[in-house]
Amino acid sequence: MTDRALALTQQLIAIDSTTPADGGCQGLMIARLEKLGFRIERMRHGDVDNFWARRGNSGPLVCFAGHTDVVPTGPRERWHSAPFAPTLRDGMLYGRGAADMKASLAGFVVAIEDFVAAHPNHPGSIALLITSDEEGPAIDGTVRVVETLAARAERIDYCIVGEPTSSARFGDTIKNGRRGSLSGALTIHGKQGHIAYPHLARNPIHLTAPALTELAATEWDQGNAYFPPTTWQVSNIHAGTGATNVIPGELTLQFNFRFGTASTAESLRQRVEAILNRHGLDYTLHWTLSGKPFLTEPGTLSQALSAAISAETGVSPELSTTGGTSDGRFIADICPQVVEFGPINATIHQLNECVAVEDVAKLAGIYRRTLENLLL
Amino acid sequence: MTDRALALTQQLIAIDSTTPADGGCQGLMIARLEKLGFRIERMRHGDVDNFWARRGNSGPLVCFAGHTDVVPTGPRERWHSAPFAPTLRDGMLYGRGAADMKASLAGFVVAIEDFVAAHPNHPGSIALLITSDEEGPAIDGTVRVVETLAARAERIDYCIVGEPTSSARFGDTIKNGRRGSLSGALTIHGKQGHIAYPHLARNPIHLTAPALTELAATEWDQGNAYFPPTTWQVSNIHAGTGATNVIPGELTLQFNFRFGTASTAESLRQRVEAILNRHGLDYTLHWTLSGKPFLTEPGTLSQALSAAISAETGVSPELSTTGGTSDGRFIADICPQVVEFGPINATIHQLNECVAVEDVAKLAGIYRRTLENLLL
Repeated sequence: MTDRALALTQQLIAIDSTTPADGGCQGLMIARLEKLGFRIERMRHGDVDNFWARRGNSGPLVCFAGHTDVVPTGPRERWHSAPFAPTLRDGMLYGRGAADMKASLAGFVVAIEDFVAAHPNHPGSIALLITSDEEGPAIDGTVRVVETLAARAERIDYCIVGEPTSSARFGDTIKNGRRGSLSGALTIHGKQGHIAYPHLARNPIHLTAPALTELAATEWDQGNAYFPPTTWQVSNIHAGTGATNVIPGELTLQFNFRFGTASTAESLRQRVEAILNRHGLDYTLHWTLSGKPFLTEPGTLSQALSAAISAETGVSPELSTTGGTSDGRFIADICPQVVEFGPINATIHQLNECVAVEDVAKLAGIYRRTLENLLL
Repeated sequence: MTDRALALTQQLIAIDSTTPADGGCQGLMIARLEKLGFRIERMRHGDVDNFWARRGNSGPLVCFAGHTDVVPTGPRERWHSAPFAPTLRDGMLYGRGAADMKASLAGFVVAIEDFVAAHPNHPGSIALLITSDEEGPAIDGTVRVVETLAARAERIDYCIVGEPTSSARFGDTIKNGRRGSLSGALTIHGKQGHIAYPHLARNPIHLTAPALTELAATEWDQGNAYFPPTTWQVSNIHAGTGATNVIPGELTLQFNFRFGTASTAESLRQRVEAILNRHGLDYTLHWTLSGKPFLTEPGTLSQALSAAISAETGVSPELSTTGGTSDGRFIADICPQVVEFGPINATIHQLNECVAVEDVAKLAGIYRRTLENLLL
């Protein structure tokens, strides 16, 4: 099993599937699932590839969910090996998507292959819900598949999303919920002018700095039993045309809240606007609520997965709701129990993303044991 | 004289000499100066035409300095008449370069023609220092001519730069100095990461905000008798790849000081770095001193020019050091008295640039009277 999970992970990494491209990853997975008797439904929306695959007609339905797209590489010359050339070094497998989440996709396929080989007439059903639009706008991806399933009243009983949830040690963390995500696109209006005559201009960079300082230093809440404190981060700030003798006319800034149930989207909106107003800024602000928080309280699924992790790794996982949004927020609409589990996330979205070779095989084993715990 | 100055201004405007092109303007001037017995040295550097012309061997040496290049036209369809078709309308002469500074170039030539005709054996020497790289990077222009002169120890006693210095009324302003310009290209190093895991990243936008707030609020000096207070302005700030779920790894920022003699470039450098260091920032900072301040205290030259302006226009000019940099900063290295005087600057670098027809003739008269005041 080790070799098959590793080999499939390497095959997937070798495909440049920078979001929203799939690049053929799903085709690789589908070819293997078809051999196992899965019914495949490809669902392409816009430039996003998705598929839904199901084996079995009875309940309970256990679903593995994930994405084939990856975030951009960043400066390629700063990678030690090319980002789409899977490279083994010192027990690690390097490449964009290694941890987020091509090792998980390979783990799904190999786990199912092994489970079906051992239990060809297993009770219940197994499904996969795969998208190429998790790292991008997430508009034509999982949410569209869920809409299709909801429209025909197809429900999922247990869903395991393959996001890289492990933190310090492989197996240490299961996500049983996720924070919400609230974004703002802010434009600060100033007045353009020549840099030698600042009294005739209003420099939006200078005007923004004090408000930005205050926003960055604000404690939004202290979290609660299920969620860590809310965080606020700026992802982009831009002002200036490149000309060094011109004071720009406006500044644009994009920011994002990750919030639990200790705050509401509405309260966060009001507090940001109060700060901007108090600093006397002339601004335009567009808000996007891209995900409400979701929570799966401890139960059948988290216990089945925890037991599988302990059996495979000896580690007792903790339940956590920290981290980014995932497509779990959408699946929760048609599935009462959604959890997430995958490799160590220390290098995801960074240069030289990697996963431990040893963990790739164990991950497939964990997914297989979870199937056994839930279906047998 | 009126007709000759206006005619030569029109001839020069009719030539498209968008920086760094000269387009033949200097050839027109040289042909007339050679007839007066000037020794001409053409000094072409890269794609920039310059020339140095001198008549006489003794001191004092009075130099007229200027540039034949003009800034780009901007959208031509928004000009009322074609930018390189000199057009008379309602007492104004329209065309790109009319005020900045082809009327001044014509004024130099006609003033010298008249002066030499009246005083063929004048004491002292007259020179012209003309470039086609004032509006551009100013690397292969005046600075290179000054280097050549300095290398052979040729000094200028009095220099009049023909920049358009008049403000509300023709004759109201002589520039007797210019602020210096010191630029910084700053990179703040953080650590890239996923926006949902800010504790694993260091957001350079958040790290920069408090220092930027302090820099923007700093009073660098209060100015002095000759210079307004030093100003600091950011022209560009950029961080973020466009992705809204990534904390960027670095932030870049370009800023510029305009400073007088109340501060030094070195003191400003040190104070900026002290603020960045106090905020604990990890940064790279490249400085460019594109012009030291220069100052010509009231004396022989400013008095000679002021008297000429008053005699020709009835206006008593003020001495000022405001505004952008000019080539005066380079000439000051080999000339103890540098001043600037020319037409009203209200339309320079704009659409429908123009100069009053009446001022074109008066300008030649002012330059001729200044020669008389200095050399006779």
